[in-house]
Amino acid sequence: MDEFDFIKRIQPKSYKQSNLIKGIGDDAAVFRQSYQDTVTAVDTLVENVHFSRKTMEPYHIGYRALAANISDMAAMGCKPAFYLISIVIPPSWAESELEEIYLGMTAIARQFQMDLIGGDTVSGKELVISVTIIGFVDRNKARYRSDAKEGDVVFVTGSLGDSAAGFYLLSNFDQRDRLTYQYLINRHRMPFPRVQFASGLHSLQRVCLNDVSDGIASEANEIAEASHVTMKIDYEQLPIDKSLLDFSREQQESWVLSGGEDFELIGTVSELEWQKLIEIAAKQNVPVTAIGRVTGHDHKGKVFLAKDGQTKLLRKSGYTHLK
Amino acid sequence: MDEFDFIKRIQPKSYKQSNLIKGIGDDAAVFRQSYQDTVTAVDTLVENVHFSRKTMEPYHIGYRALAANISDMAAMGCKPAFYLISIVIPPSWAESELEEIYLGMTAIARQFQMDLIGGDTVSGKELVISVTIIGFVDRNKARYRSDAKEGDVVFVTGSLGDSAAGFYLLSNFDQRDRLTYQYLINRHRMPFPRVQFASGLHSLQRVCLNDVSDGIASEANEIAEASHVTMKIDYEQLPIDKSLLDFSREQQESWVLSGGEDFELIGTVSELEWQKLIEIAAKQNVPVTAIGRVTGHDHKGKVFLAKDGQTKLLRKSGYTHLK
Repeated sequence: MDEFDFIKRIQPKSYKQSNLIKGIGDDAAVFRQSYQDTVTAVDTLVENVHFSRKTMEPYHIGYRALAANISDMAAMGCKPAFYLISIVIPPSWAESELEEIYLGMTAIARQFQMDLIGGDTVSGKELVISVTIIGFVDRNKARYRSDAKEGDVVFVTGSLGDSAAGFYLLSNFDQRDRLTYQYLINRHRMPFPRVQFASGLHSLQRVCLNDVSDGIASEANEIAEASHVTMKIDYEQLPIDKSLLDFSREQQESWVLSGGEDFELIGTVSELEWQKLIEIAAKQNVPVTAIGRVTGHDHKGKVFLAKDGQTKLLRKSGYTHLK
Repeated sequence: MDEFDFIKRIQPKSYKQSNLIKGIGDDAAVFRQSYQDTVTAVDTLVENVHFSRKTMEPYHIGYRALAANISDMAAMGCKPAFYLISIVIPPSWAESELEEIYLGMTAIARQFQMDLIGGDTVSGKELVISVTIIGFVDRNKARYRSDAKEGDVVFVTGSLGDSAAGFYLLSNFDQRDRLTYQYLINRHRMPFPRVQFASGLHSLQRVCLNDVSDGIASEANEIAEASHVTMKIDYEQLPIDKSLLDFSREQQESWVLSGGEDFELIGTVSELEWQKLIEIAAKQNVPVTAIGRVTGHDHKGKVFLAKDGQTKLLRKSGYTHLK
């Protein structure tokens, strides 16, 4: 296994991106980009910290590793183009399982016309997958979390808490019972990042965007902090899938506010452009819900949650307390 | 330690590269590049696989992790500009040691005016440092290992085997004896990639380049394979530092041919441009030595070594046998 060169094995035979000049095979990859800005991020997953073979097949581990990175591109309003993989392989992983990781990764890469352009395979004690992603966005159209302004509508795509519910089901339900909740399980194992929607907003003058990787409580606070604003979110407006109603109110609240890993987008937009955003979403058949407002300025940034007739401060963790 | 956000701690307060639009702090970094090609690679180091605290201080581990990546940029004839770090931190590493890694990394980054633009910090069982590097090169001036042609002069910068000798000294000599060989130890712990020399060759029409990360036997074979040529190297011409003469002939041969990690450059250039290359090297005070010739075509690529009046096939491993 030590000599198994994962990257060489999964090296693409042809490339999809037309601006790639040199793919895998030299000391580095080369591409040309004259008209758009280049966007890049790195994300690392460690076995038994970020995922477990108990709830994920190797295929899903590969799929999700790349999906999380693609979601970062969506949060920038950017289209992903390239990725590089660094993988630490422990002796406990069979070659066939690594192939499955690869299959999951290439399955989602294909959907976004992405090319693998580099990587490194090394041996170690535990499986670590580190993905560097590179994408492109029209000049000055990168979407930042620091761009929220007073009066903005706060919105979110899709539904919240599905991935956390799926994880709960995979951890606690047996195979047969899981079938009832296949939707939630798929949302955990194979989330689909909102790239098309985000890059479809390029005609809008200003959009503030963040992806829901750590739960909406955390992401809303990140926007409030980076934009120096206060934000009010209405709990009753938060979009949840009807299958979540089968679970307790406590579970629902925890999953919806701090479940995370739904890889939906949370954002803010001026009231003026809100209608335009709705129309773009409708054309793409992407559910978008207004969940609150940017209500004022605050240097430190604060998020308030209206629930059961009370307004409480919403912490990053999802914990609320009376203001 | 779990909550110690390494990347946030080492986040730069200002950036040096003028084409950076957004550094650390959002879902991804953004930069603009209109006139040059972008070059990128990733390299991963695992504790006790690629380095050990027995022979390296944390400072050197950080320095070398980035140096290895910068050397890949040199091998492409490219100037490094940005880097992203993913780091897996085990409980056994103290915060102060991680700071040392950071100091080593920023020390070499500063020398090349590089900016840290992203990263990820996660916890795990063993230290893993994965560096993604991004650089720029004039259009169509990226230097490939596939560009060697029959008749070319084969050259190498600096001296070979120093890093392997340094590693031997660190593993087998005590502190006092090491002082005699400080040069070799420094060459192992703090190699300096040949970026300036390689990018200084941009006026040359064609240069084939590879960096000596795995030993010259391996790198010469990589060029021969990628360029489909045969190459003859003269052992007596291989440049070695005089301090290597203190060791046995067997040790010298092993270090020089397959020691690796000197992060020198091996390349080929037409006889016509060889003189020009010599002049550029002289101006920069970089030692360059002609070590052989590209002698013909071969689809699979072969390297021969002339030594002690015999010509033998040189394997990637450094092993030789009569052709």
